[in-house]
Amino acid sequence: MLESFEKAEKISKSDYTDELNRLRTELINAQYEFKKYKRPMILILTGLDGAGKGDLVNFMADIMDTRLLETSTFWQETDEEKERPYYYRFWNAMPQGGKLSIYFNGWYDKTIRRALEDGDSPDAFTKGLEEAADLEKMLSLDGTVIVKVWAHISKKEQKKRHEKLVKKSDKSEEISKRALWYFSKYDRIVECAEAAYKATHNEFAPWEVIDCTDRRTREIRFLQVILNHMNRALKGQMPKSRTENLTGLAFPNVLGSLKQNSETDPKVYRNELDGLVEDLKPLAWEAFRKGLSTMIVFEGWDAAGKGGAIRRLLRAFDMRLSKVTSIAAPSSEELSRHYLWRFWRQVPRAGRIAIFDRSWYGRVLVERLEKITPPADWFRGYSEINSFEKHLSDKGVHLVKFFLHITDEEQLARFKERQEIPWKQHKITDEDWRNREKNGEYLDAYNEMFFKTSTKHAPWTIVPANDKRGARIEILKQLKTSFTKMLNK
Amino acid sequence: MLESFEKAEKISKSDYTDELNRLRTELINAQYEFKKYKRPMILILTGLDGAGKGDLVNFMADIMDTRLLETSTFWQETDEEKERPYYYRFWNAMPQGGKLSIYFNGWYDKTIRRALEDGDSPDAFTKGLEEAADLEKMLSLDGTVIVKVWAHISKKEQKKRHEKLVKKSDKSEEISKRALWYFSKYDRIVECAEAAYKATHNEFAPWEVIDCTDRRTREIRFLQVILNHMNRALKGQMPKSRTENLTGLAFPNVLGSLKQNSETDPKVYRNELDGLVEDLKPLAWEAFRKGLSTMIVFEGWDAAGKGGAIRRLLRAFDMRLSKVTSIAAPSSEELSRHYLWRFWRQVPRAGRIAIFDRSWYGRVLVERLEKITPPADWFRGYSEINSFEKHLSDKGVHLVKFFLHITDEEQLARFKERQEIPWKQHKITDEDWRNREKNGEYLDAYNEMFFKTSTKHAPWTIVPANDKRGARIEILKQLKTSFTKMLNK
Repeated sequence: MLESFEKAEKISKSDYTDELNRLRTELINAQYEFKKYKRPMILILTGLDGAGKGDLVNFMADIMDTRLLETSTFWQETDEEKERPYYYRFWNAMPQGGKLSIYFNGWYDKTIRRALEDGDSPDAFTKGLEEAADLEKMLSLDGTVIVKVWAHISKKEQKKRHEKLVKKSDKSEEISKRALWYFSKYDRIVECAEAAYKATHNEFAPWEVIDCTDRRTREIRFLQVILNHMNRALKGQMPKSRTENLTGLAFPNVLGSLKQNSETDPKVYRNELDGLVEDLKPLAWEAFRKGLSTMIVFEGWDAAGKGGAIRRLLRAFDMRLSKVTSIAAPSSEELSRHYLWRFWRQVPRAGRIAIFDRSWYGRVLVERLEKITPPADWFRGYSEINSFEKHLSDKGVHLVKFFLHITDEEQLARFKERQEIPWKQHKITDEDWRNREKNGEYLDAYNEMFFKTSTKHAPWTIVPANDKRGARIEILKQLKTSFTKMLNK
Repeated sequence: MLESFEKAEKISKSDYTDELNRLRTELINAQYEFKKYKRPMILILTGLDGAGKGDLVNFMADIMDTRLLETSTFWQETDEEKERPYYYRFWNAMPQGGKLSIYFNGWYDKTIRRALEDGDSPDAFTKGLEEAADLEKMLSLDGTVIVKVWAHISKKEQKKRHEKLVKKSDKSEEISKRALWYFSKYDRIVECAEAAYKATHNEFAPWEVIDCTDRRTREIRFLQVILNHMNRALKGQMPKSRTENLTGLAFPNVLGSLKQNSETDPKVYRNELDGLVEDLKPLAWEAFRKGLSTMIVFEGWDAAGKGGAIRRLLRAFDMRLSKVTSIAAPSSEELSRHYLWRFWRQVPRAGRIAIFDRSWYGRVLVERLEKITPPADWFRGYSEINSFEKHLSDKGVHLVKFFLHITDEEQLARFKERQEIPWKQHKITDEDWRNREKNGEYLDAYNEMFFKTSTKHAPWTIVPANDKRGARIEILKQLKTSFTKMLNK
């Protein structure tokens, strides 16, 4: 199929100059317009060895405003990256809104390489493509412009360039050997590329094949591709989420039927807590030695006791191993990218524990109820979150999600207490009172969240928390069980 | 000397409760005030093993608003960190303005540890302390509040705790062994700490010694220390730069006496350029294999041809090895920290090349002339920059600084050309014309910059650039020489 793109067209020098000058001006203008569009653009540039991808990037940098341009390469894995899911590096490199980033080889490179080198099963290859398509759709529906360029040359042309390359010895041995090996795999690579094309060429992230035989032709085509796809966003032609019928569906009222516990005796509490803390300490260090990382999510009603529970946890989890992230309103840096960006960046290193005081679930909770995010967008959140958690769990990250439940009366009592104690007053604002008025809506949102995001690899644990002490004990117990299970796997 | 702090005072339970409640409220209020202060606060918490530093941090997290609080540990070096100067990790962890970060063990730990473990020479130890004092002064004059806490216990007390610890086996072997070894070094550690205290206890970053024998006493003291030092900033008691007598000094007019070259023939240029590009390629790969990293700075008049020169460089430096950073106005994230923060973050990994289109020299150029920064502050810039470059050069980073010089008439001609060519119009704004009116002041600033920041390890190379082609050739030649020299060292 890809050979149908081998046209080996040539363009005259004067046509080239005319078209180039037109494109120069239009691209610069488009860049400035795109800056105002405020979402990122990612161009994945991949293709055959020897096609001249590097030259294309340098050429482009010569034409466009480099202040709105970035290039990311992913060829050398750092130890920080190795310890996280494959897509961590790509999320991390996500350009700010309004900028174009060239992802050199992008996320297809490894998928194809592994099919070739490690003889990955066809299933693994297919799974890799599905994950790519899934991510691209997610980003595209969020307004990120994605285009994928396959830099193509014919087998004959590659052979010619190959011979020329062999004569030079300006690259490190590692690079040349790799290149030589790839040259020998032309047919298999093209086969994989065709499969990738078929599986992932869609409205969200289309493929563009550029025949790179002729320099002038490929340069013009490359600039045209960039311009056309920038224009997709500027002309309002980005794919949109369908607004699903969001209302009228009822979900099991999990919280309504939850039984609260009677108060735990302070002395019993202290003893049990101390015991659990001592039990958990060695488990955390063992997980560290084994390189098993953990993410712990705390969600719950205002004043449900998330902070207090987290501070008890920290007695068990050494500061060297754990980190708490409190999620507040996003910064402008964060707002200009997909909302999951800031959470991907918090995925812990091997053996570490990341604790979240509120989390990515804000998408389907506060953003939904405060109308910060349009319905069609937060509604996608459920599947986006499930996909994020699947990436984590596939990498072996141990995920624990706690929801702290208190009754309406208990919340009222705690709010009043906060108002009275000087050092608690900062914890209660008018906003909290306003939120309380929406408790009915929050109940619905919580129930929908449990229903849609309790998965086998990342189930919710709902903790009755009217009794603070009991809740803390329960959480530590759950973690002890969960860590023990993970360590014995 | 430190034993004079061993007072082993005790505090009654009721006094403790009263004082704690007072401190809770005051600390919370101070945190909110501090948020408005918009500069960061760093508390280095170090001291003797077994003193209970970890407990202190957890205790503090229980009292204060954790959303304005961070903890950074530096015990495990990542490969990314190993490849950069020692202070890279500390700059990287710099909290945003308005936040307090606890630097667990901070930058003293390694200095002391190395004196103990590797038997570092007294000179190396002294140098370590000087670097620390230098950094602290720099940050403090920039408004960062720094306080250093030494958590102390007597030798006898440590012995008691040591015996208790040995009975437990909840830590990883690595940790215990380390702790045991440190316990055996009490006297030497205290000796080093005293030296550190003497060398670095000053108005910029004072030491506070806390006797950690009694739990209640140390908790109260720790909170008091935090509150007192937050108040330093809130009450306007931060040390200030003395405004030096900045005017009236003349510096050698290096640029005025620079000869411009006659125009290079296009054909000669192309051949020479191609040759140099091919020569540089293998040098860059060799530097990569040897793990030698490079930072290349481009400064110069508006329209001097920095961008064009950089794009020629990129033909020689593979995209996988090099990265260009264009320096524009800082983001709010950047503004809330010391101005060098964003440049420290750009220090390249081993074997990589970082290219800067404008740089940290903006501090003594645009920030000076546009009055963005008060005189006393930009004036410190010269020594701050020299210190930054010294850190780089001590780590073996290869630093090359180019200044592209064009004459006033040449600049005028280029500005006019830019206005006429459609795809160059974005490069010329009213601001550029306004800047041109300040060319006299810029000349003075450039000459002062050359005089003060041309150092042995990081000299300036001034390139006559009226002839664009000649300038590009000159730059590539210089780099070829410079790379060759570095590789043969």
